[in-house]
Amino acid sequence: MSEAIIYLEPDSTLSLQSQIRQKLIDAILKGAFPPGSRLPSSRKLAEQLQVARNTVVLAYEQLLGEGFIESRERSGIFVSGNVLDGRIGYDGAPSSLQEPGGNWRDRIRLRLDRRPGFQWPQDWQQHPFPFIEGHFDASLYPTAQWREASRLALGARLVQESTVTESGADDPMLLEQIRTKMLPRRGIVASPDQILITLGERNALYILSRLLMDADVRVAMEDPGSPVLRQLLQQTGARLMAQPVDECGMVINSRLQRAQVIHVTPSHQVPTAVTMPNERRQALLAQANQHDQLIIEDDYEHEHNYLGNPHPAVRSMDTENRVIYVSGLPKVLAPGLRIGFIVAAPELIREARRLRQMMVGRPSLINQRTAALFLSLGHYDSFMNRLHKTMGERWDALRQALNHYHRGHEINHPTVGGTALWVESPSHIDVNTLVAEAARRGILIEPDTHYYSGRGRSRNYFRMGVTSIPKDRIRDGVQQLEQLIQKLSGERLERLDSQDPGLLDGDALQQLLSGATIRYKTFYRDPCTIKLKSDGRMLGRAGYADEDRDEGRWWVEDDLYCRQWRHWSYGEPGAYRVTVHGDHIRWWRTSGELVDSAIIERSDAKLD
Amino acid sequence: MSEAIIYLEPDSTLSLQSQIRQKLIDAILKGAFPPGSRLPSSRKLAEQLQVARNTVVLAYEQLLGEGFIESRERSGIFVSGNVLDGRIGYDGAPSSLQEPGGNWRDRIRLRLDRRPGFQWPQDWQQHPFPFIEGHFDASLYPTAQWREASRLALGARLVQESTVTESGADDPMLLEQIRTKMLPRRGIVASPDQILITLGERNALYILSRLLMDADVRVAMEDPGSPVLRQLLQQTGARLMAQPVDECGMVINSRLQRAQVIHVTPSHQVPTAVTMPNERRQALLAQANQHDQLIIEDDYEHEHNYLGNPHPAVRSMDTENRVIYVSGLPKVLAPGLRIGFIVAAPELIREARRLRQMMVGRPSLINQRTAALFLSLGHYDSFMNRLHKTMGERWDALRQALNHYHRGHEINHPTVGGTALWVESPSHIDVNTLVAEAARRGILIEPDTHYYSGRGRSRNYFRMGVTSIPKDRIRDGVQQLEQLIQKLSGERLERLDSQDPGLLDGDALQQLLSGATIRYKTFYRDPCTIKLKSDGRMLGRAGYADEDRDEGRWWVEDDLYCRQWRHWSYGEPGAYRVTVHGDHIRWWRTSGELVDSAIIERSDAKLD
Repeated sequence: MSEAIIYLEPDSTLSLQSQIRQKLIDAILKGAFPPGSRLPSSRKLAEQLQVARNTVVLAYEQLLGEGFIESRERSGIFVSGNVLDGRIGYDGAPSSLQEPGGNWRDRIRLRLDRRPGFQWPQDWQQHPFPFIEGHFDASLYPTAQWREASRLALGARLVQESTVTESGADDPMLLEQIRTKMLPRRGIVASPDQILITLGERNALYILSRLLMDADVRVAMEDPGSPVLRQLLQQTGARLMAQPVDECGMVINSRLQRAQVIHVTPSHQVPTAVTMPNERRQALLAQANQHDQLIIEDDYEHEHNYLGNPHPAVRSMDTENRVIYVSGLPKVLAPGLRIGFIVAAPELIREARRLRQMMVGRPSLINQRTAALFLSLGHYDSFMNRLHKTMGERWDALRQALNHYHRGHEINHPTVGGTALWVESPSHIDVNTLVAEAARRGILIEPDTHYYSGRGRSRNYFRMGVTSIPKDRIRDGVQQLEQLIQKLSGERLERLDSQDPGLLDGDALQQLLSGATIRYKTFYRDPCTIKLKSDGRMLGRAGYADEDRDEGRWWVEDDLYCRQWRHWSYGEPGAYRVTVHGDHIRWWRTSGELVDSAIIERSDAKLD
Repeated sequence: MSEAIIYLEPDSTLSLQSQIRQKLIDAILKGAFPPGSRLPSSRKLAEQLQVARNTVVLAYEQLLGEGFIESRERSGIFVSGNVLDGRIGYDGAPSSLQEPGGNWRDRIRLRLDRRPGFQWPQDWQQHPFPFIEGHFDASLYPTAQWREASRLALGARLVQESTVTESGADDPMLLEQIRTKMLPRRGIVASPDQILITLGERNALYILSRLLMDADVRVAMEDPGSPVLRQLLQQTGARLMAQPVDECGMVINSRLQRAQVIHVTPSHQVPTAVTMPNERRQALLAQANQHDQLIIEDDYEHEHNYLGNPHPAVRSMDTENRVIYVSGLPKVLAPGLRIGFIVAAPELIREARRLRQMMVGRPSLINQRTAALFLSLGHYDSFMNRLHKTMGERWDALRQALNHYHRGHEINHPTVGGTALWVESPSHIDVNTLVAEAARRGILIEPDTHYYSGRGRSRNYFRMGVTSIPKDRIRDGVQQLEQLIQKLSGERLERLDSQDPGLLDGDALQQLLSGATIRYKTFYRDPCTIKLKSDGRMLGRAGYADEDRDEGRWWVEDDLYCRQWRHWSYGEPGAYRVTVHGDHIRWWRTSGELVDSAIIERSDAKLD
């Protein structure tokens, strides 16, 4: 055994000692070192591998302790004779198998959609502008804090505890943390027997769907809504009612009264991200009480409200235990673990626990304790603050960019938060074409197609998410998307007619604009007022409470209306052609595309 | 703030610094320290808590970094003003809720048995003789090795990887380890696309049951068999066929041909623990091929064969991809994580993956990598060797004790391994009475009632497990159980009739036994032969190959047959009354109870 028979991998995450141990065990179990064969001396192996001799010695000692090898007086180290006992070799096992009659099609009784959701390209990270929702860039993962919590959890005497805790009982520390740290943020009070820990929110929804739904039950869900959820509800055989969504979330109408169970996402509706106002939450609850309905409140992304505070959960207003509250730790943590939970009436929780036991057993106690420590150490709070800040900045950048470039129409679903925006594609551009063309340019956006019940229907919306795109790429991405839209619009795009009688020259512009007030709505339907002072100063007010203010300069140059804000429009100067018909003013890029239109009021001073 | 407002818990698993941080955050979030309120100086707090000042300083620094507190020039440390922003207090939330019409009974469509399995008493660990199966004493958990694997897994770049790995794809390292470390022990060869990782074996069975079963499918399972499995299969609506079990496991007969799917536990049948011999495995497979059936091979406890090597899995003999193999990491590891897996045709695995995604999502990558490292570092192998050794010793001690004390009849299900024995209760004692009376004496055994299809039926068997009882308690426990049986038998017990004409005195004993051969069967149905030499030596041979041998001394004393083995019967001397009728010999305790009976052959030498 002169030449080295194992090699070390430079970029392995294992320590040298661990690697040596692992490689030797592999070699032994795979028969490279038959039982009784002699191993190189620690000195020799250390030379061959170019590691400190002590590293090899320690690895050997562990293997000795584990009985893989044995050392014989004055003759060296050998593979134990019985090391392969009880192992059955590969021989005799068929290397490849034929399908049984190939009729899996008949055998498999439950078939799921091939791809319920929209599939981002495998290499989405190679795209410069991934406006993706759901995937998170790894930089957001709280590795250090998570590691600390795990280390402490592994140190705990959980294994002993687990043998005494009633089978199926969750970690009391995690229940306590959820009750005191997470639920108060949502205004919810719950006793431990009202909480069940699940393997993520989806697992919670699956358990509830199996418990509460079958062919005799009518279940209402939002339309548009999550395709994964739709699939999950469908496989119970329940009769699905697609309930429309408006800018306040699920529409509440007499039709909804026929449902026995209502699934709803009040915090940020999927996919529109609109938030259900308190009035509608009250109305929903009132109807549920009147018609004896159950509500499954899927509290998706409740943390991410950037404009105003989060609303209390519907569950917190519930006095009749009709609301089944589902939430969990944020999806960013999924690689480490999925933790979700259900808050509901104790009787339902009892049944849910039984089903969970049959389906997956109790979620690992060590995982539960890790989550509990992550919460109790304050890591969850600081992590959520960081996440909230990052998402808020990205979301804001996306809103700004859309307002700046994607002008000409308003957004139909104004939102106060979330991690995505729901944008209407110009009526003359098919959204699937747009998505495909955009992807070819490295811009990933999501079509609305799969969100509507009744496959492949589309209302020509697309979704732009910010969970994976760095803030500083957002403006560029939106600009390039707008250029693509221009290109695809081609002829159908209204262009400046140089013969337009309403086209103003420099003098007319000066006269018209000086002292004038321009009123229009932002992309987000907020009223916006711009006052053009005769001295060239310019004041802007946006929002219902004028909460968004800016000032800047305006002037006329070569028959162009020029302006520069301090903050708005990225504080960059712009120059536009202007046409006026009556009090209807429109401005155009010098290249001829329409930028926006508004109402103009001339101050009386100017009138005489 | 003169007196301490937080206190430290001496027996906490947290570091002092972590504890201080956690307590402060709790106090802040629960409002004990309102926003803007002043905190004690690090010096003061350190005094109050009697910890090094630096410990407090470090805790404070972390809280500063996390934005919970802020320090103001020359005035001290304060709770941040915005620390509670976005939190909704308890006020307004109803403290208690009424049930909605209390009609959960109608609302819950899927009802599971309250308690499918037998429930051990909550305080089973307080019982001196817990002959339990399923619970494990914590001492068996490989804490150090598990911790090492976790630490390495947390160090890996898994989070980055997870964003690129196809959603739902399992950890390639774990798949590789299962393929090269675990499956070869079972003679199984599988490519990665034939393997799905699940959250334990039960999760695997649940997924398969949902995929392959509905009201149109006939499913055969063993009877007696696992009540949890029965419940799991029933909830699919499938038509269950209860297939009898003999000492070779599931019986294969023409009736079985009507099943489309067959669930079977060939390694160690639950509950009898019998192992299916290769011949029957072949017959099962042949029938499945002939009648186009699927086999779910539940490879329960395949590691624990103490007599002889494990048999290759049925899957390893399958050439038509009919066998769906289910196994996992041993249940001892469950507090750390549940990892199970399915090996089957790629088409089935694809569907199973989709269902898993909808049900629980992908099992945590960090957990998967932890398991992979546990395997690749050789910890799994050494752990299984330890576990196998421990269980083997306990199992052996139980066999010995039963053979020694529980005489008078044979066991009906001889086994070669597992972690439990299936014992028949004397026909005149109801097993439930026996179980209850035994529990009152601190002896925990499991009745057979819930193992049979058709609730509450019993064949008067009970089950004795060794997963939790220390080896050195086993003999004592079995002895006390036997005494209880004697007591419960009371009158019905056959006793020595002092008028029995066959009762021998000293001389007759000496004459009869000297040079005689005694033949009978052990408790495990092994033939046993005892030769009584005229010189007082005694030779014993047991087993079909006489593999179990011992020798000892015999003599006659006060009309008693006395004997002492070197090893058998714990090497302890015994003295018995003896009756003979024809060649039928029986011996009795001096207290009158029957010990055992046998056939006696007198050597011809003696005849003349």
